[in-house]
Amino acid sequence: MSSDDRTRLAALLEAVHPLHAQAMSDAEQRQAQLTKPAGALGVLEPVSVRLAGVQGTCPPRPLTSPAVAVFAADHGVHAQGVTPWPQEVTAAMVENFRAGGAAVNVLARQAGAEVYVVDVGVAGEVSPDDRVWVRKVRAGTADLSVGPAMSEDEALVTLLAGADVARELVERGHDCLLTGDMGIANTTASAALVAAFTGAPVGEVTGHGTGVDDATWRRKVEVVAAAVAALGGAPDGPAADPVEVLAAVGGLEHAALAGFVLGAAAARVPVVLDGMIAGAAALVAHALAPSVVDHWFAGHRSVEPGHAVTLAHLGLRPLVDLDLRLGEGTGAVLALPVVQAAGAVLREMATFDSAGVARK
Amino acid sequence: MSSDDRTRLAALLEAVHPLHAQAMSDAEQRQAQLTKPAGALGVLEPVSVRLAGVQGTCPPRPLTSPAVAVFAADHGVHAQGVTPWPQEVTAAMVENFRAGGAAVNVLARQAGAEVYVVDVGVAGEVSPDDRVWVRKVRAGTADLSVGPAMSEDEALVTLLAGADVARELVERGHDCLLTGDMGIANTTASAALVAAFTGAPVGEVTGHGTGVDDATWRRKVEVVAAAVAALGGAPDGPAADPVEVLAAVGGLEHAALAGFVLGAAAARVPVVLDGMIAGAAALVAHALAPSVVDHWFAGHRSVEPGHAVTLAHLGLRPLVDLDLRLGEGTGAVLALPVVQAAGAVLREMATFDSAGVARK
Repeated sequence: MSSDDRTRLAALLEAVHPLHAQAMSDAEQRQAQLTKPAGALGVLEPVSVRLAGVQGTCPPRPLTSPAVAVFAADHGVHAQGVTPWPQEVTAAMVENFRAGGAAVNVLARQAGAEVYVVDVGVAGEVSPDDRVWVRKVRAGTADLSVGPAMSEDEALVTLLAGADVARELVERGHDCLLTGDMGIANTTASAALVAAFTGAPVGEVTGHGTGVDDATWRRKVEVVAAAVAALGGAPDGPAADPVEVLAAVGGLEHAALAGFVLGAAAARVPVVLDGMIAGAAALVAHALAPSVVDHWFAGHRSVEPGHAVTLAHLGLRPLVDLDLRLGEGTGAVLALPVVQAAGAVLREMATFDSAGVARK
Repeated sequence: MSSDDRTRLAALLEAVHPLHAQAMSDAEQRQAQLTKPAGALGVLEPVSVRLAGVQGTCPPRPLTSPAVAVFAADHGVHAQGVTPWPQEVTAAMVENFRAGGAAVNVLARQAGAEVYVVDVGVAGEVSPDDRVWVRKVRAGTADLSVGPAMSEDEALVTLLAGADVARELVERGHDCLLTGDMGIANTTASAALVAAFTGAPVGEVTGHGTGVDDATWRRKVEVVAAAVAALGGAPDGPAADPVEVLAAVGGLEHAALAGFVLGAAAARVPVVLDGMIAGAAALVAHALAPSVVDHWFAGHRSVEPGHAVTLAHLGLRPLVDLDLRLGEGTGAVLALPVVQAAGAVLREMATFDSAGVARK
């Protein structure tokens, strides 16, 4: 790794501050005065407190300009037959995102979120425009089953590119960042990251992705298990430096997403995570700077079994649980209204005193 | 019961048609062509199919003008000390709804839904306006622990008033109806209805409501158990005619809500149910016209234990599960974006053919 990039990484991690204690305390006190039984709004209450802590103000500001960044990349492990989908689908889906026809576009329009696509490693050619950013580090990873997916330098550069995307979106005025992803075979790399960072057995964190049959699933487990074993290290934790693990078995979108969710936290902007791919990337970021997890909301729980393991490891409760397994950011976008609603409760609800309602 | 009201009830039940089979089949076929792996949008897919079936068209029309009706009433069983909250809070909360300061107002503004309040039995005086409708049948129920909560005539008249509210809201252009409720002590009446209609043990369906202590909870269970036992009948099913059960142990808001969710179905307008109180009322409607349940979406799962029993009995999966236990319609309003998003998927997503994306 170049010493300049190492310095930039250190500065990024240093910029992840703890949540704002006074804002959180104010939010808790305000919740107790609102016209409802204590705790009756369930998870909305801690979500509102966390939002105040991330923004450093109570009540939290409304999230009026959310943006989802869909990081797209290809995977050399595709050659091992871990998915029935052709690799070309990654680039074709980038065009579908550009045209506004993919699921994440539809759900983002419903939720009032902007969609950006960031090519950090699509194998095919992608043309840039205002909403499709080309930050390609390499045209897809190498096959993680025969060697490292990328060099540590590439992993670090891609991570920093993801952090830059977060910074640039915040500079454009976006006040809530949602993670998205696209990359045929990316659940394979995700399973490897989850196994490496959580220590969970490979068979328990490897899923059926876009819908592979049992024979393909067994092949996928073998590939992931061999890659994770090659990392060495203790069975109950990461084998080595997080960037080394990321380079060995991750994807370019994982690297960028890890930087993205660190960069958002450094800018004190809340993050809504999507599912399995985002979770795997979040494990990398969490290993680098454990307190970063406090700045995030888990949008949903994916059907992919590794995702529940990931959420438990990170201590995050999903806001939506609807058997999604699509990625793209769909679960994050579906959860966005819940986060917005939690903040609105603190800003807009009457108190017992203001409304003249008797307490028990 | 007057024969005229009996005739109106029969006409209402007759107007609940089955879902539109062709629209549902069209929706299923369209789901299979959209640019995503089959099933990858999880629960959004059957929600979209149901929405097409309720509206009788595919793709379903957007839900651009949702409305939540908060039915408010008081409960004679309050005299038994089943809650620490004073009865006057019901009327005070009606004024909080009118002023826009309650949780349901805040969440409805976030979701773009209008809030109407319908007084069907508040003990205090309520002034009508364009959004606060006074359809009071009596000023609160009698104490269900010493006799029927209301007469069967009153139950039927209130049920028909709820159906009228649904019809009037649809005539105003509202295209999705959400249930709301307010009434101190209404979880007691709800638990009695749930036990009566599902046959579940009273101790398993009676919860801590707005947060009662253990002694109050035990008192609540005794009261509910005695009322349910007085109904007679088999332990695994309703004791008698649904309207008779409703009159014996229900609340005026339960009666109105039962009519409301039947009236919406008769108008082919989708319903999003809130939690425990809505669920108890839904059991009445379901007992009267079993197919009505197909027109509903379960907004959320309440912490109240009787609600999970209710959802299982009705065969509904909650769209949101965030430990809410407030009522008012808050869980329904939080779930509304999920229903809207499901419909948008069918209207707006590209197909594999239109987007030029290869299939596996």
